[in-house]
Amino acid sequence: MSGHLDEDIARVAWNDAGLAPVIVQQHDTGEVLMLAWMDAEALRRTLTGARAVYWSRSRGEYWRKGDTSGHTQQVVAASVDCDGDTILLQVDQHGAACHTGTRTCFDGRALTVRGGD
Amino acid sequence: MSGHLDEDIARVAWNDAGLAPVIVQQHDTGEVLMLAWMDAEALRRTLTGARAVYWSRSRGEYWRKGDTSGHTQQVVAASVDCDGDTILLQVDQHGAACHTGTRTCFDGRALTVRGGD
Repeated sequence: MSGHLDEDIARVAWNDAGLAPVIVQQHDTGEVLMLAWMDAEALRRTLTGARAVYWSRSRGEYWRKGDTSGHTQQVVAASVDCDGDTILLQVDQHGAACHTGTRTCFDGRALTVRGGD
Repeated sequence: MSGHLDEDIARVAWNDAGLAPVIVQQHDTGEVLMLAWMDAEALRRTLTGARAVYWSRSRGEYWRKGDTSGHTQQVVAASVDCDGDTILLQVDQHGAACHTGTRTCFDGRALTVRGGD
C-alpha cells in the first residue's frame, strides 16, 4: 500500500513551489466548489484520511477543510490531469464550501459573457 | 459595454505572472474538462468572442481552443471565485477537451483513495 501511495504522489508534477492546484468538485451534482492547493504531504493526508487537506499559501500551513468551520469535505475520488500538474478532487461537501458562506466560491460572482463572432 | 468589460477584467486578482487559473467545465453535465490559464487579454477575448481563448504558458502565446484540433469550446458562462484569483468557465465542448483524445484531461487518471479516519 505504501509503495503504491508513493507512486500516486509521484505522478503529480509539482510546480516550482512544490504545489499543484486542486479543483474541488461535489461528486454527485458536479458543482465546482473551489480551487485550493496541495503539496505532496497534503495529498498524502488526503488520500489516506477521510477528509480533504490543503496547503494554505496565505497562512503557510496545512489546512484540513472544516476543522474550524465544520464544513468538512469527505473525499470520494481523486485524479490528475494529462500532464500531471492539476488534481481533481471529488468530495461530499457538508454545508458551505466558501468561507463567505456561499455553497461554492463562485456563487453570485458572474462575469458578463458578451458573445461575438 | 467597454467600461463594464474593463470592470469585469479588473475583478480578477492576477498572479505575479499576470495569469489566473481557469477551471473549464461542461455547462450541462458538470464534467470538469481541464485547467488552463488566462491573462487579462485572453479573458477579454473570451468574454467578447464566442470561443474560449487561453494563454499557453509552455508556448508563450494565445491559444483559441480548437483552432488546430477542431475541438472548440463555446463560452456559456464565466465567474470568479471569492478572492478573485480563479476563473470558472462553463463551455459547450465539441469533441475531446484533452489533446490526448480523451473527453476530459482527467479521464482514466485516477489516484487511489484509501480512506481512513
